[in-house]
Amino acid sequence: MYTLYYAPGSANLLVHLALLEIGAPHELKRVDLDKGEQRSAAYLAINPNGVVPTLMVDGAPHGEAAALAMLLAERHAEAALAPAAGSAQRGDYLQWMFYLANSLQPLFRQWFYPGDQLPAAADTVQEAARIGIEKCWSHVDARLAAHGPYMLGEQLSVVDLYVLMLMRWSRNMPRPATEWPQLAALATRLKARASWKQVCAAEGLTEWV
Amino acid sequence: MYTLYYAPGSANLLVHLALLEIGAPHELKRVDLDKGEQRSAAYLAINPNGVVPTLMVDGAPHGEAAALAMLLAERHAEAALAPAAGSAQRGDYLQWMFYLANSLQPLFRQWFYPGDQLPAAADTVQEAARIGIEKCWSHVDARLAAHGPYMLGEQLSVVDLYVLMLMRWSRNMPRPATEWPQLAALATRLKARASWKQVCAAEGLTEWV
Ligand SMILES: N[C@@H](CCC(=O)N[C@@H](CS)C(=O)NCC(=O)O)C(=O)O
Ligand SMILES: N[C@@H](CCC(=O)N[C@@H](CS)C(=O)NCC(=O)O)C(=O)O
Repeated sequence: MYTLYYAPGSANLLVHLALLEIGAPHELKRVDLDKGEQRSAAYLAINPNGVVPTLMVDGAPHGEAAALAMLLAERHAEAALAPAAGSAQRGDYLQWMFYLANSLQPLFRQWFYPGDQLPAAADTVQEAARIGIEKCWSHVDARLAAHGPYMLGEQLSVVDLYVLMLMRWSRNMPRPATEWPQLAALATRLKARASWKQVCAAEGLTEWV
Repeated sequence: MYTLYYAPGSANLLVHLALLEIGAPHELKRVDLDKGEQRSAAYLAINPNGVVPTLMVDGAPHGEAAALAMLLAERHAEAALAPAAGSAQRGDYLQWMFYLANSLQPLFRQWFYPGDQLPAAADTVQEAARIGIEKCWSHVDARLAAHGPYMLGEQLSVVDLYVLMLMRWSRNMPRPATEWPQLAALATRLKARASWKQVCAAEGLTEWV
């Protein structure tokens, strides 16, 4: 039994989708970000960065959405959500997980929290983030065009769930990810899955569902 | 036999250190960043983002420094550079690899290339990056204080090699990472290893060696 600390539509979405694809029993605990619950002493004790998600695994708290998705994929190998260690696709898998974590997701953090470091410079930071995000979409779209329909080819993996979450985050941006044709096709395919309907219902999502 | 495309002291340092700790035979190919070789057609064919490192693994090119370090650690399990899948420490391992890749390393990209997206805003982007980097050092230092001497406790792992590379990148910043006491102790410990001396010699590093 896993416990996922979440806020609707936040970085937990990737982990939540992985739990649902796996069919792993889990409990949800909502963290109210508007009320600042992520900075309460109780929450900081399990997540010193004060962010969602946190996943309790065998009674111990762990953070970092991408890390949790990889951990779930390897704890539940039967769900085939990741190429096994030693397989030919393993390098591509790790590369794309870290590309998304290292290049794309941090820009969303700056898009959504542009004034975190320098409040007066929020507009500038946000505009730089937008430009960077659009470059990343072009790169991911080119990958799908060359090697799709999924990020690793024929087989769905947690990389696709990760892309889907980030795509949803772009929905109100000047150029949402769905303007890239291969990305739009990927989203349509993934949103037809039971896991998407379940995650939207469980988190209470109403936009881009 | 691996081939590592590198530029002295760049993101390849983590991968290079892992190869040396493992004792894996490898060949080095220098990419001259000042001459723009990372944007040559030949290099873009193996690394579409035009960045170092690239590692040739079984004849196929792979990117993303942190992904490559994880891949090497699992291909050479005998070197014990990472907790095995299924072990109690696996969650911590993945969490720290992604924390560094998601929160700290991207800020260095902005510190070193502040004008990448908006040249006119370079100073602002760089100052925001500095503030973020210092927050991250405090977080990593606290981890070491609570769970050291290494990032995962008693045992060296690729997480430490990753921290060491990022620490070196901070050497000319207003507040280098060595101003945090646990980080300074970690660097001293790691720089005493043969792999550090070898990497400095092979890449021709002269500063912070
Ligand atoms: N590196 C973390 C980042 C998580 C993150 O930034 N979460 C956001 C929501 S998407 C959050 O908790 N924000 C609340 C806050 O920063 O106060 C991860 O990937 O899990
Ligand atoms: N996400 C990549 C980033 C690599 C990166 O930014 N490398 C820098 C050097 S540390 C680079 O190649 N810069 C040259 C350029 O961007 O033109 C990774 O972790 O491997």
